Amino acid sequence: MEQTTVTVPGFSFAAASAGIKRSGSRDLALIFSEKPAVIAGVFTTNNIKAAPLKLAIEKISSRKGRAIVINSGNANACTGEQGLRHAQETTEKAAEELGISPGLVYVSSTGVIGRTLPVEKIKNALPGLVKALSPSSMDEVASAIMTTDTFAKKAFKKIKIGNRTGTIAGIAKGAGMICPNMATLLCFIVTDIAVSPAALDSALRESVNRSFNRITIDNDRSTNDTALIMANGALGNKTVTKNSPIYRQFKNALSELTYDLSRMIVNDGEGATKIIEVVIRGAKDEPDAEKAAMAVANSMLVKTAVYGKDPNWGRIIAAAGYSGAKLNEQLLDIYLNNVRLVHKGVGTGKEEIAAKLLSSREINIIVDLGAGKATASVLTCDLTEGYIHINAHYTT
Amino acid sequence: MEQTTVTVPGFSFAAASAGIKRSGSRDLALIFSEKPAVIAGVFTTNNIKAAPLKLAIEKISSRKGRAIVINSGNANACTGEQGLRHAQETTEKAAEELGISPGLVYVSSTGVIGRTLPVEKIKNALPGLVKALSPSSMDEVASAIMTTDTFAKKAFKKIKIGNRTGTIAGIAKGAGMICPNMATLLCFIVTDIAVSPAALDSALRESVNRSFNRITIDNDRSTNDTALIMANGALGNKTVTKNSPIYRQFKNALSELTYDLSRMIVNDGEGATKIIEVVIRGAKDEPDAEKAAMAVANSMLVKTAVYGKDPNWGRIIAAAGYSGAKLNEQLLDIYLNNVRLVHKGVGTGKEEIAAKLLSSREINIIVDLGAGKATASVLTCDLTEGYIHINAHYTT
Repeated sequence: MEQTTVTVPGFSFAAASAGIKRSGSRDLALIFSEKPAVIAGVFTTNNIKAAPLKLAIEKISSRKGRAIVINSGNANACTGEQGLRHAQETTEKAAEELGISPGLVYVSSTGVIGRTLPVEKIKNALPGLVKALSPSSMDEVASAIMTTDTFAKKAFKKIKIGNRTGTIAGIAKGAGMICPNMATLLCFIVTDIAVSPAALDSALRESVNRSFNRITIDNDRSTNDTALIMANGALGNKTVTKNSPIYRQFKNALSELTYDLSRMIVNDGEGATKIIEVVIRGAKDEPDAEKAAMAVANSMLVKTAVYGKDPNWGRIIAAAGYSGAKLNEQLLDIYLNNVRLVHKGVGTGKEEIAAKLLSSREINIIVDLGAGKATASVLTCDLTEGYIHINAHYTT
Repeated sequence: MEQTTVTVPGFSFAAASAGIKRSGSRDLALIFSEKPAVIAGVFTTNNIKAAPLKLAIEKISSRKGRAIVINSGNANACTGEQGLRHAQETTEKAAEELGISPGLVYVSSTGVIGRTLPVEKIKNALPGLVKALSPSSMDEVASAIMTTDTFAKKAFKKIKIGNRTGTIAGIAKGAGMICPNMATLLCFIVTDIAVSPAALDSALRESVNRSFNRITIDNDRSTNDTALIMANGALGNKTVTKNSPIYRQFKNALSELTYDLSRMIVNDGEGATKIIEVVIRGAKDEPDAEKAAMAVANSMLVKTAVYGKDPNWGRIIAAAGYSGAKLNEQLLDIYLNNVRLVHKGVGTGKEEIAAKLLSSREINIIVDLGAGKATASVLTCDLTEGYIHINAHYTT
């Protein structure tokens, strides 16, 4: 999909510049299903939720959707009653132009928090957007939802179901304010495979838990994170339910897709020069493994050391130590790109080899806590001056 | 004390260059009480503890101490059985030179984790260090314990007890790996006031909770954090117990002292250009207030925004939102240096005034969660390219 444009039967897309971003680049997008689709969603766990999320969380209990309107450049978060009205007006205008019920339209926003949404600009752009809908414009939508992203994030998977081949295609955005539990991150997925509401919901939740919820760029969770999937059944397959033999295959494909997208997000981490996979082994249980992996992945000292190509494993062990995860210092091992830096809690003196390995773009850190058999892994990136530059001057 | 040297009756001090730091600057220090003193200590909550802490935690149950040997340049952490032996050898050599029991000697280390302690260099330097002991050398000790600190941190308080005046004097170090629960932070306090073991212990714990445990530079907790206080009773006052009328005064003076030192540590935060006080009001309870204050103070996005003089309050509200603290968005207010940026959850449009205020070195952020009456405050600093520079190249 890097070079070619994927299409998903029954879905069309459009993007435009509505004038929300001062840069004049694309900032409004529309995803549309010809037929009513089954929809599932996962939203931020932040106690402060943006206006469009408040509407979506209410609406999604119907499990039905046909259109998603997305704007970048303004988060419509912390905008009070007015923000809710603006999200509602956007919904209604899109429904009117598409000739469908407002109950089937979802809106999503990303950008600066606390600014009034320029709703008139959006409403003015919607008729043109509807006219521009095309099955081959998914890439344009991927670009239009970008904020500080430096490249568009898109992926697709094909699944054989009997003699038919279904497609799952997704796009995502996010580069900062990224930490588990859905973070400044928007992800929209469409599939022509017919899937039951319960199966779609559980496959999405499981996929997100193993992908977007296991990446961290800066340990900051946003007010707008949203992942939505629409399944329109255009493939004509027998509906996939949680008991279908094909369900596992569908879920695995969706998990791979969200993992690919989450990896792209980390690769595009603000200012990042390296992608770091932190793997915890030998944990007492999975929650402990996750806790330790997150602590290492969020440690500013670990992230700056990797940036500086500095095999300072003391920072890794310190982070594992304060994570709260059970560990056995006498059995603790640390590997950096397969070189054992620490054995049974003590350094092996291989810092020089490790320093050389730190020149590669992909860094793998394995910590064996020596406390059990559970594992977990988390993706993150290094912390550089570039992150500071980008974030010291984002709204002004 | 900035200019003059404080002395505390019955205590003497010495510092030397033992060759642990490659720079050749002072890296070994000794604090000595003429008479056996009452001692209390607080140590890191990190599950990985440096060798000297393992010894100290065992020893301190005696509540007695006379000498503290401190080295910088090497943390003696993650050094296994050998590290423990080295800490023990240092203890024994110091005891021998001072002519006291090893049970009264504490050792403390700070610096890089995982390197073998150059124990011979330390043992060789100890006789000279003991000879150099002087009541007026506390400042030299404050310098000798520095690692990435840019200035020595020292403070003292005087207390009238009847017609006598007692002194509490303390020194501290720390600039990175700083987060609550005692972090890369060493603090040594001496007083000539006679204080009972129980009173000394509880006064220290309470002081640390309100000072060192309420600062954060980078959310990284070290393996070596230690705060020790020795009270030698040279003042000749009636021993202060928890029931003494003077106890509260003693505890308040100690709290002020540790607060002053903790503020100095934040002021010296690696790469920092600004000190930020985050105050949470209107929380459901104090733990919630602390949680929200810590989330805002640890947010890399808040810290970079302050650095960039960017009144991006959306990042503040997002951090409060993901802290897990109960909040009422409709009643939430945010003030920046007394300008109300958010009222009842919505921006007041005063970003321009706020941007000007962000030029000052001291920044005050108040968030009223609108959920109750509890408050808490946390000190932190901004996040700059300077932090990255320092930490990308610390061991190499």
